[in-house]
Amino acid sequence: MAGGEFDMIRRITADLEQSPTTILGPGDDAAVLRLDGDAAVTTDMLVEGVHFRRNWTTPFQLGRKAIAVNVSDVEAMGAVPVSVVVALALPIGLEETWVDQFSAGVREECARSGVSLVGGDLSRSESITVCVTAIGEFRGSTPVTRGGAAPGEQVAVCGRLGWSSAGLTVLQRGFGSPKELVVEHQCPTVPYGQGRVAAAAGATAMMDVSDGLLADLGHLAEASRVAVDLETDAFAVTDAIARVCAATGKSPWGFILAGGEDHALVATFPADVALPEGWLRVGSVLEGEGLTVNALPWQGAAGWDHFAR
Amino acid sequence: MAGGEFDMIRRITADLEQSPTTILGPGDDAAVLRLDGDAAVTTDMLVEGVHFRRNWTTPFQLGRKAIAVNVSDVEAMGAVPVSVVVALALPIGLEETWVDQFSAGVREECARSGVSLVGGDLSRSESITVCVTAIGEFRGSTPVTRGGAAPGEQVAVCGRLGWSSAGLTVLQRGFGSPKELVVEHQCPTVPYGQGRVAAAAGATAMMDVSDGLLADLGHLAEASRVAVDLETDAFAVTDAIARVCAATGKSPWGFILAGGEDHALVATFPADVALPEGWLRVGSVLEGEGLTVNALPWQGAAGWDHFAR
Repeated sequence: MAGGEFDMIRRITADLEQSPTTILGPGDDAAVLRLDGDAAVTTDMLVEGVHFRRNWTTPFQLGRKAIAVNVSDVEAMGAVPVSVVVALALPIGLEETWVDQFSAGVREECARSGVSLVGGDLSRSESITVCVTAIGEFRGSTPVTRGGAAPGEQVAVCGRLGWSSAGLTVLQRGFGSPKELVVEHQCPTVPYGQGRVAAAAGATAMMDVSDGLLADLGHLAEASRVAVDLETDAFAVTDAIARVCAATGKSPWGFILAGGEDHALVATFPADVALPEGWLRVGSVLEGEGLTVNALPWQGAAGWDHFAR
Repeated sequence: MAGGEFDMIRRITADLEQSPTTILGPGDDAAVLRLDGDAAVTTDMLVEGVHFRRNWTTPFQLGRKAIAVNVSDVEAMGAVPVSVVVALALPIGLEETWVDQFSAGVREECARSGVSLVGGDLSRSESITVCVTAIGEFRGSTPVTRGGAAPGEQVAVCGRLGWSSAGLTVLQRGFGSPKELVVEHQCPTVPYGQGRVAAAAGATAMMDVSDGLLADLGHLAEASRVAVDLETDAFAVTDAIARVCAATGKSPWGFILAGGEDHALVATFPADVALPEGWLRVGSVLEGEGLTVNALPWQGAAGWDHFAR
């Protein structure tokens, strides 16, 4: 790649917009932030061939996705996302435009999610690897953990469930349509701002749905020492997912309940809370442990495990 | 690897000690920190085959090094390092003990440097990749950037210069001795606490030396719009480096001034400041631009560039 490491860094960081939170942006040993209240910190790595493929995801989409999946975790705590740092490892010989397109995607998603890119790292590798750390501020509010759900509460979701995994199935079959599902796999539509909204509405527990709704709700139920029952009638199966199911013989519930990479939010609310706009009631918190679907045990795959045998 | 992703995460995070800064440690969507003053944030990725080789660096040493090189950047701002998050991507089929040994190294270096491991990410990859983000707090003090050096000031270093690159040369020749140099390459001895000490003593600019002293001082000089002259008489050439030079015909100044991966600190101080213990005066800040060694232009390699042609 032309120009060397420092020239590439200059191109990535040129004319970056910074929020008032940023006391010192890229270019020094560390960024300096002035955060309002406690800080939320989360990190996630995207690896070529594992999380994405170059022929399925453009550099622009990858840049967007790397920011989106991390900011989503900050949202899921009820914090306000403010900053990201991006570590990038690239093969020598990558086409010159790759970095510029990736960088444009990062900027696009930073603008959408309201965060500033404050620093990063650039190095070599055999395959493209992106690691983003996102930081949020609580502005005096209390973090919404996975452990606060109580029996009698309602379970609600916000965002697009099953779209990403259905899109992956489309790509794996060699197709590019339904386009809206493929695009969702290439970069999830995170419901920015809704974590904060849910926290303000009284959410007692919340999570980013990244491993599949059932798998992640399983973590929430375990942390809260409760059981959860999901009601499939509550979900609308979108036409696009129904079309993929018709073509493949797959069940929509495999995508919606166990798909993964949704980056939707799932939260629990007291029974008397009127759910905020955009949130859908999909189940109930019960005494006991474990998950059921329509009061029955779930028979399908549980979700994503990177090291499952 | 046995046990799957969630079992591995449980093993890595079991019984972690947390500082009072940590409101919420590993296990949720994000960690929650209560920082004292402004925050320093920095990230660095280590890639197998680029930054380390499995046959030269043990998992324990890699765990230590990944923390050390990041905490060093927080120190270089004059901040107090408090927290790290660690993203780890591992090949399937890695020996079972690897993660436990890596994790032990991470814990060892966290203890040495005074930081808590507050979160992370675990996924698959073809080759081992570690990305650490380190966070520090300023506790009311002012960040020491690269841009504050002024003509007439003294340049000083703290830490081991040239040891790591001389150790790499030893390994590349197929040897394991001098051991102290090899060990320094496998994991640098970061002068923990000295960034804070330098800031309190009045350091006007400071950097972590990671690309080689001349290369990094070049960045500092550029940011500060000054020139720097280094005096080689100021440095002691340790016996071990002298032995490597005798065996290879290399100049010690290639290691000491341009070696890289030292993770020492270089700082500038007003002329009338008595340097803190452990700091060595090695040169002067001058008007103008660029670097000289003993008032002459440097003829050797400038330093490390991941994408240099």
